[in-house]
Amino acid sequence: MIERDEVFRLKTAQTPGTLSKVLAAVAQFGGHVGEIETITIGTDYNVREVAVIAPSEELIDDITAAIAAVPGVEITEHLDRVFEAHKGGKVTMRPASTVRTLQDMRAVYTPGVARVSLAIAADPTLADEYTWKQSTVAVVSDGSRVLGLGNVGPLAALPVMEGKALFYSMFVGINAVPVMLATQDPAEIVRTVQHIAPGFGGIHLEDIASPGVYEIEAELDATLDIPVLHDDQHGTAVVLIAAVLSAARLTGRAVEDLCFGQVGLGAAGSAIALLADVFPFSSVRVFDPGQDAVDRVVSLGSERIVATASMAEVVTAADVLVLTTGRANLLSAADVRPGQIIMALSNPVPEIDRRVALEAGAAVATDGSIVNNVLAYPGLFRGALDARVPAITAAMKRTAAETLAELAPEGELLPDPLDPDVHRTVAARVATMG
Amino acid sequence: MIERDEVFRLKTAQTPGTLSKVLAAVAQFGGHVGEIETITIGTDYNVREVAVIAPSEELIDDITAAIAAVPGVEITEHLDRVFEAHKGGKVTMRPASTVRTLQDMRAVYTPGVARVSLAIAADPTLADEYTWKQSTVAVVSDGSRVLGLGNVGPLAALPVMEGKALFYSMFVGINAVPVMLATQDPAEIVRTVQHIAPGFGGIHLEDIASPGVYEIEAELDATLDIPVLHDDQHGTAVVLIAAVLSAARLTGRAVEDLCFGQVGLGAAGSAIALLADVFPFSSVRVFDPGQDAVDRVVSLGSERIVATASMAEVVTAADVLVLTTGRANLLSAADVRPGQIIMALSNPVPEIDRRVALEAGAAVATDGSIVNNVLAYPGLFRGALDARVPAITAAMKRTAAETLAELAPEGELLPDPLDPDVHRTVAARVATMG
Repeated sequence: MIERDEVFRLKTAQTPGTLSKVLAAVAQFGGHVGEIETITIGTDYNVREVAVIAPSEELIDDITAAIAAVPGVEITEHLDRVFEAHKGGKVTMRPASTVRTLQDMRAVYTPGVARVSLAIAADPTLADEYTWKQSTVAVVSDGSRVLGLGNVGPLAALPVMEGKALFYSMFVGINAVPVMLATQDPAEIVRTVQHIAPGFGGIHLEDIASPGVYEIEAELDATLDIPVLHDDQHGTAVVLIAAVLSAARLTGRAVEDLCFGQVGLGAAGSAIALLADVFPFSSVRVFDPGQDAVDRVVSLGSERIVATASMAEVVTAADVLVLTTGRANLLSAADVRPGQIIMALSNPVPEIDRRVALEAGAAVATDGSIVNNVLAYPGLFRGALDARVPAITAAMKRTAAETLAELAPEGELLPDPLDPDVHRTVAARVATMG
Repeated sequence: MIERDEVFRLKTAQTPGTLSKVLAAVAQFGGHVGEIETITIGTDYNVREVAVIAPSEELIDDITAAIAAVPGVEITEHLDRVFEAHKGGKVTMRPASTVRTLQDMRAVYTPGVARVSLAIAADPTLADEYTWKQSTVAVVSDGSRVLGLGNVGPLAALPVMEGKALFYSMFVGINAVPVMLATQDPAEIVRTVQHIAPGFGGIHLEDIASPGVYEIEAELDATLDIPVLHDDQHGTAVVLIAAVLSAARLTGRAVEDLCFGQVGLGAAGSAIALLADVFPFSSVRVFDPGQDAVDRVVSLGSERIVATASMAEVVTAADVLVLTTGRANLLSAADVRPGQIIMALSNPVPEIDRRVALEAGAAVATDGSIVNNVLAYPGLFRGALDARVPAITAAMKRTAAETLAELAPEGELLPDPLDPDVHRTVAARVATMG
């Protein structure tokens, strides 16, 4: 079920209560009202733009009909806010040098550029200063596992990568170039990324299916001298662990006293368990029905990671219970231990509804909607690029998670992703670990 | 010999004639003076910035010493204009969508973006409208043949590709992404570009050595459904043929009456001969010492292309003589036939000095300094992208050359590359051929 954002331009009669009836019509179908902008206040009628979030694609028609049925209301326009925002793409390239005269042109192009090329040929580190490389990241995807959509392929995944690029630019001034791959073969992906690596300061892997992506990330990490990060694993893990740290603080408990339980060891789940492993939780217990996934996490983690024989064992033992199973309503109220911190991340329907968990005694309960990767990857990469490190280490991810937890406002698990200071602070802290 | 642009900040005594002595000091070593900016006029001294073009890297020290030796002159600063212009890179990515609120974020990113992805998965042509693809070109190079520098490799070639990207952005709003390749193997290059093609509206190949690049271009052209253009061939050919058309017009001669002679069939030379072949020259005569190069051009061209047994044959027969041999001073005054149009393109020293050719009776003579590819590739690609064609055809290149010749000011061979109207006009005309 995908929500649908729509903007209605309405001509409403100057009769008191008309707008209220519009809002009631939206609410009747479970819709939410976003921004309301008043365009004109006339003597007979007003013009307003009302943003509506419909719970599903299908309900937008019902909501539209209900609004149109309100007496004195005319829908004059009807904008699909999402498609509007994507028109022509969400990022663009701009000149960073001024070229006003032919002499300027001679400096940035022939013949001047030859001197810069020769200088870099003699000393490749000069590329950091005299090209865009050190602020530039390739956002690489084959579209094999997009959001909750599955294998939609590279072209359909492009809007997602542009979104990543947009936030890289907005928050930390990184040039992020979407690189959409026509192959989904891990060995070919490795080779392709190795071939295009020289012009980039880092490689951001996104929406590539596991287990292939593990091999891709490990191989690129081993062979390239620039940072490589699979955001679906590590971005998610950093944000989730930050939320866990905040939850521990909110409930007045020390991380050292908490058993961390991870159920589901897909890309995100395994990265969460492995990042939890670098924090002083009393233990990290993991479960997944697939033995390969369990073996991988156990082999990559410290001896503190304990594989359990059943999900029930983790659910019972964990003070912090994180679920990434993809299975809706896997837990019932009876499974909740009072005082537990529960993060049920599966989308669109979590393993347990947060209200059910809270009523059953959970100290903190949340779902996947709070985990917004955009909190992590811009600062992580900016910090790594600024520190000129060849890889993003566990210590850097730990620092990023701690910083995000620290920046969360009182009573919240995470800070506002639209606050540029958040990203700058994460970047600065990460850079000190380089 | 690479020229060197330097900006001197000078504190000069208020003695009449001081600036003139500075300019004389520059001229003494063959230097040219560019812009002179007056920063302050004081009672005792003035501060000025003087841009100097030194004929070579080495002479800048002599010029600096000579300026410093002028009585009443102090050099307070000394900027290498070229390196200044390259700092931090010459292009940058910027947001094209506004994200001010969490609701905006929901539109450009999760959950909104999922609807756009699904729509493109169902109908791939929607990517033209809802991603940046249709305005985006990959500028691909392995750095195997950069400018006159040779095989400096991909990293050293990056400043050149950024220069291309800068002009793409400035003149026609194309997002051009430098893609620097760690391989120089043609088959690997083909495969890599095929793998990264889905997110791009076109492929611009640059500074890749021939003959490998012919195979790369042909194979990509045959397998990809987007335009592929090797700029060193076709960009150069379009600009050169435009200059030839202007020269014919200046000398009052019809193209139909002219024999076109091409000596040197490297990447640029062969493309020039093949583009000349689509114009109504009376014949196109070509020569190259390498039989493979000759055979390739003859096989790709029409029956009007005639391979000659010696260079002398072409030089004697040609009304328009184009030389791309890489051999300095190959021709002497005695070789010039009165009334000939001679374009001696080799850099940095042409096959014949234009003044020598003119004195020997050439109607028009020029060297490679006039052929600036930036006149061709932005408009060519913008036109091709706007027309949504799968390839840039000979007819499009012909139209681009004719348009450039038409836009050349009275008495000039080519228009000003900094005039945005030139690029827009080329783009519009090329698009009508799609």
